[in-house]
Amino acid sequence: MKREADPINEQHRVILAGFGHFGSTIGRFLRANGIESTILDHDSDRVDLLRKMGFKVYYGDATRLDLLRAAGADNAKMLIAAIDSPQINAELISTVRKHFPHLEIMARARNRFDAYELIDMGVHNIYRETLYTSVHMAIDVLRKMGFRGYTAMRKGLDFIRYDEAALEKLAVYRHDMEEYVVNVREQIEMQEKLLTEDLHSSLTAEDHAWDSEPMRAGTTSNQK
Amino acid sequence: MKREADPINEQHRVILAGFGHFGSTIGRFLRANGIESTILDHDSDRVDLLRKMGFKVYYGDATRLDLLRAAGADNAKMLIAAIDSPQINAELISTVRKHFPHLEIMARARNRFDAYELIDMGVHNIYRETLYTSVHMAIDVLRKMGFRGYTAMRKGLDFIRYDEAALEKLAVYRHDMEEYVVNVREQIEMQEKLLTEDLHSSLTAEDHAWDSEPMRAGTTSNQK
Repeated sequence: MKREADPINEQHRVILAGFGHFGSTIGRFLRANGIESTILDHDSDRVDLLRKMGFKVYYGDATRLDLLRAAGADNAKMLIAAIDSPQINAELISTVRKHFPHLEIMARARNRFDAYELIDMGVHNIYRETLYTSVHMAIDVLRKMGFRGYTAMRKGLDFIRYDEAALEKLAVYRHDMEEYVVNVREQIEMQEKLLTEDLHSSLTAEDHAWDSEPMRAGTTSNQK
Repeated sequence: MKREADPINEQHRVILAGFGHFGSTIGRFLRANGIESTILDHDSDRVDLLRKMGFKVYYGDATRLDLLRAAGADNAKMLIAAIDSPQINAELISTVRKHFPHLEIMARARNRFDAYELIDMGVHNIYRETLYTSVHMAIDVLRKMGFRGYTAMRKGLDFIRYDEAALEKLAVYRHDMEEYVVNVREQIEMQEKLLTEDLHSSLTAEDHAWDSEPMRAGTTSNQK
């Protein structure tokens, strides 16, 4: 027997769909910073467990129009699409784009290929789920190999910025695998060249001023 | 028919096992910064595709002792364990801890529970694969809600630092679910309190000096 969706008795500016490891990390961080969100999750056991841990989570299928309305989609500002299944997450995003076009969408994607689908739907704030973590591990590798911590961090954030820009360019080639491979190869070479140039320019007199800017720029790469 | 492992004809300070989205991002970033690694992957089609994209990848099972030796494990400094399957990745790490204890291990983990297993093996540089990405998405949410970019970034890196410290504490409670839930709840409350205190302390006169430090500190949380 399917459990009935919970009645929702709160509305916030942010709706957060999917409260697994990915979504719950976001929910915890936002709450710690004073931003409440209306949280939906469709995993019955998980909802019960999360409640025991002190979270206010509503059980229900976020791809359902009536549930989205009950969660305040008409008046909210932003939807965070963080469902574990890329297919269901894409379905949610497609519904929201159609019925609540005013909502800004922050989208989780499993990998490059999911991200291309989201780009086709007109979504720009796309976060490939292992991208930032793998780059942060690599930043720490650089540090252990003798790079200054600050430099390594800056280079990591630049790398992500280039990679996200390349993603939008590569999206159009993905249906022809041969052409796609050629273009990926070109993008990787260009990316390495840009990062190497950064290495040189960071050794110039402007080093210090230049150094602080990417810390801001690095987090804005998704907001075009 | 299983394909034979490739003969390996290069040795570097870094061995990188697993070249899916996670590992290949690390490999690309390191190469762009002049750090070569000996790359192993056990997915035959992927190895062929990656070669077409310009990567030097050796086909083979990285959990095999002879392959690790051929890749230079005796003289290398670091192993990056980035295999997609958490089970095989843990197997690799266990083999390396036993036979090549001098190697520093950088470990990918799927989630909290995999991370606990790795902590039990004495591994400290653990990267839960969606943690940094979910926090970076949340940092961007804060920015869109009006936080300064720099402040949002700093708070995100602090959050990760607290979360990784909490992970080591929670590891011991995980075998008793009831006790575990109570402790998770406490940790979350403490984490929120610490972040809220940061919010206040960042409004004091020391704001500026204090602001720059976590950028360095934020990346060092794994290096204990």
